[in-house]
Amino acid sequence: MPDTLNAPLATPPGLLEALAELLGPRGMLTAPEDLAPHLSDWRALYRGATPCVLRPAETAELAAAVKLCAAAGVPMVPQGGNTSMVGGATPDESGRQIVVSLSRLNRIRALDPVDLTMTAEAGVVLKLAQNAAAEAGCLFPLSLGAEGTATIGGVLSTNAGGNTTVRYGNARELMLGLEVVLPDGQVWDGLRRLRKDNTGYALRHLFVGAEGTLGFITAATLRMFPRPRDTALAFCAVADTDAALALFRRFRDRDESAVRAFEYMSGAGVDFCLKHIEGVTLPVETRAEHYVLVDLASPRPDAGLREMAETLLGEAMEAGEVLDAVLAESEAQAQKLWKIREEHPEAQKREGASVKNDVSVPVSRVPEMIRRCSEELTKLIPGSRPVPFGHIGDGNIHMNLEQPEGMDPAAFLARSHDIMDCVNAVVREMDGSFSAEHGIGRLKTDMMPEWRGGAELDTMRRIKAALDPWGLMNPGKVFF
Amino acid sequence: MPDTLNAPLATPPGLLEALAELLGPRGMLTAPEDLAPHLSDWRALYRGATPCVLRPAETAELAAAVKLCAAAGVPMVPQGGNTSMVGGATPDESGRQIVVSLSRLNRIRALDPVDLTMTAEAGVVLKLAQNAAAEAGCLFPLSLGAEGTATIGGVLSTNAGGNTTVRYGNARELMLGLEVVLPDGQVWDGLRRLRKDNTGYALRHLFVGAEGTLGFITAATLRMFPRPRDTALAFCAVADTDAALALFRRFRDRDESAVRAFEYMSGAGVDFCLKHIEGVTLPVETRAEHYVLVDLASPRPDAGLREMAETLLGEAMEAGEVLDAVLAESEAQAQKLWKIREEHPEAQKREGASVKNDVSVPVSRVPEMIRRCSEELTKLIPGSRPVPFGHIGDGNIHMNLEQPEGMDPAAFLARSHDIMDCVNAVVREMDGSFSAEHGIGRLKTDMMPEWRGGAELDTMRRIKAALDPWGLMNPGKVFF
Repeated sequence: MPDTLNAPLATPPGLLEALAELLGPRGMLTAPEDLAPHLSDWRALYRGATPCVLRPAETAELAAAVKLCAAAGVPMVPQGGNTSMVGGATPDESGRQIVVSLSRLNRIRALDPVDLTMTAEAGVVLKLAQNAAAEAGCLFPLSLGAEGTATIGGVLSTNAGGNTTVRYGNARELMLGLEVVLPDGQVWDGLRRLRKDNTGYALRHLFVGAEGTLGFITAATLRMFPRPRDTALAFCAVADTDAALALFRRFRDRDESAVRAFEYMSGAGVDFCLKHIEGVTLPVETRAEHYVLVDLASPRPDAGLREMAETLLGEAMEAGEVLDAVLAESEAQAQKLWKIREEHPEAQKREGASVKNDVSVPVSRVPEMIRRCSEELTKLIPGSRPVPFGHIGDGNIHMNLEQPEGMDPAAFLARSHDIMDCVNAVVREMDGSFSAEHGIGRLKTDMMPEWRGGAELDTMRRIKAALDPWGLMNPGKVFF
Repeated sequence: MPDTLNAPLATPPGLLEALAELLGPRGMLTAPEDLAPHLSDWRALYRGATPCVLRPAETAELAAAVKLCAAAGVPMVPQGGNTSMVGGATPDESGRQIVVSLSRLNRIRALDPVDLTMTAEAGVVLKLAQNAAAEAGCLFPLSLGAEGTATIGGVLSTNAGGNTTVRYGNARELMLGLEVVLPDGQVWDGLRRLRKDNTGYALRHLFVGAEGTLGFITAATLRMFPRPRDTALAFCAVADTDAALALFRRFRDRDESAVRAFEYMSGAGVDFCLKHIEGVTLPVETRAEHYVLVDLASPRPDAGLREMAETLLGEAMEAGEVLDAVLAESEAQAQKLWKIREEHPEAQKREGASVKNDVSVPVSRVPEMIRRCSEELTKLIPGSRPVPFGHIGDGNIHMNLEQPEGMDPAAFLARSHDIMDCVNAVVREMDGSFSAEHGIGRLKTDMMPEWRGGAELDTMRRIKAALDPWGLMNPGKVFF
């Protein structure tokens, strides 16, 4: 008797043929070499299988394909730029989940510099959306490391953050309306470009951050801003983590709308950049344990941000918070200063194995969190090197840990869960979050019951069951 | 045989006794004179009945009361300051719905000027929340006409807007976390004070704007801002509605973060204020058909907002947009200028009967919307006087209509639905909304199928059924 229970799950007969007929050869990939790039995300945390990758070119095509898959009871995995940090867009190993790439839905449908709105399809690459805004004399402020690959659908589905959240908010705050293909193939046209609309439940906020478990975001109306005409950028060596926060408060309380980004870096992280990244030099004379990058911007050409920065940095030096500081003299120098921050992930990779922790705490507790996590981590793995960096202004620090010098990388990575648990225990005591901007994906589903269990997870499950009763949308993500 | 089907619905035996025992004499009102103020909202659109008003003093008390009501299958109507514009907090006429007042949940639990967060219970009056922030040297920016009565729970449940939305967003954008008693009496503690937290669905955004149909908001963590240290206020006579928008763009594009409010007023509305409100005089020499109030603020003491206003108003005068303008010379004068805008509803009331339309369109279409609605309305009811005013900067205009002079007010009000339909037809063609900031309540439920029908209303109903399967939370509101 054949072991049918453990046989690989087959795609229901006729489904692939019907999809092929609907989408045409450009709209459906089946050759193994074409499927390969869609089976894993860029961190390569997971590798799955799929019978095909669908690439609809229109919302209506996607809706028809979803109806076919739903009728056949086949699960679907939405995929954007595939830059998830948590395996959020990877199919599982069953070979039964169909990957749906939004990459051909890549038009900017409208852009209005009076309304300061842009309507972009899900497959528009973030960088191209930024460029389109800039060409119209506006700013689309969402900015993150993967912006050359990540797509609008992906950044909304994961509520991406990035460097400018402190000023402009997460992806969620930049979204006014959505178009969504629901799990049953219905299309919801919620592409409103209104600043105010109180007509029932805020469905758009449910799909943002749902990581594709409630439907496909196919297009979004996004908020733009007037473009900056005055900027200033300072790289500062600071006394300690308390001083980093005190400096943030100086700038924020003086003019919070001018603080476009405020990034913390540890001495270890900056040292790794100096060691591994070509062209990086320490911009200040003082080598320190802690640095910050203060990025100011205003649409007012006469905002006087440089003078403001000089004044506040002077006061902070007198107060002993800032040890040394340099202000960028040109756009080229500004890019060089930002490069130190942006190359942190790459420098850590070159130094050896590292474990990432994307955590947040209330802003006031960031200094304590960095201190306590660093202490606990070096107790847990003697010789390991904490490399905290990130968005101190919104309480989100990448509390990463680099392996001890000379340790076997695999042996270090085998301790990944201990390391994450160690950081999370500290963060939890401080009313923080175990996933500030990366989301849950597949990597962190097992933390959900402990952190969000009870009424919260129960309510999420009710919503999931109400909108996707057969559990066909991105199964195995967010929940498990 | 008694007509049991049409008999008044009785409260299930034992429920009132159990509630009285749970809540004590201060926690439950039953005397007719105590119930009276809770049976109608301030616009007196509806008048209902209730067997009692519950006034729990703690979240746990409310949760226990909700469990009793849910077990007995008795519907509940959450009530805050009772300032709904759409009958959102009024019980129906059945006499079976129990009113639950959140007024005794009125503590400010925490306030942190470093995090810029405040945790306030649902019954805290908006004005008191503003004051608490101010005492800590911070700003809680939500500001609206009813702020002396409206409560935090109410402004969140209705996603209130008000004058400062253009700068700080609606109530939704000012909320980081919620505590909610769910329809089954479970308590969800989601009072996080994190700027970033991507751990599953954004439940908090579902309860905000749900008008109490999904549960009771019992407390919220709110965002504060650094307090303004430089301000400027201009009252301007402008050429037409296009000029009003052009002037808004001048200020917004120069420094959008400095525009705290930007309010439009019609000549008719200002004339009503001059006629009916004591102490109001026209602050400019030019009597015009259109006016705007430009309110600027910045935490930078050296922001130079007055100089900026002078420069931009000068340019706008040269361009023919501004006919005449005055800048407030003192805080007292600023209050006098704002009074003209704030007294609009009262002046309209004294002039006679009027019909309110709280609509929004994309910002770029506001001038056209005001023009077309005014034309259509005076065609519909000859001699009637359009009184559009409000938040031009976020596309939300109160497109009100005053009765013709000498007409019987009742005869005019009998045309209310024709008037609303007339405005809504224009707004709909412009991709606008029939309820920008007032919500749906009971007044606008019949518009939901037409405007939000299909996939959107279907999804809302699924969510409602998932969270409140017996339909006990504020029945008859939002949906019908």
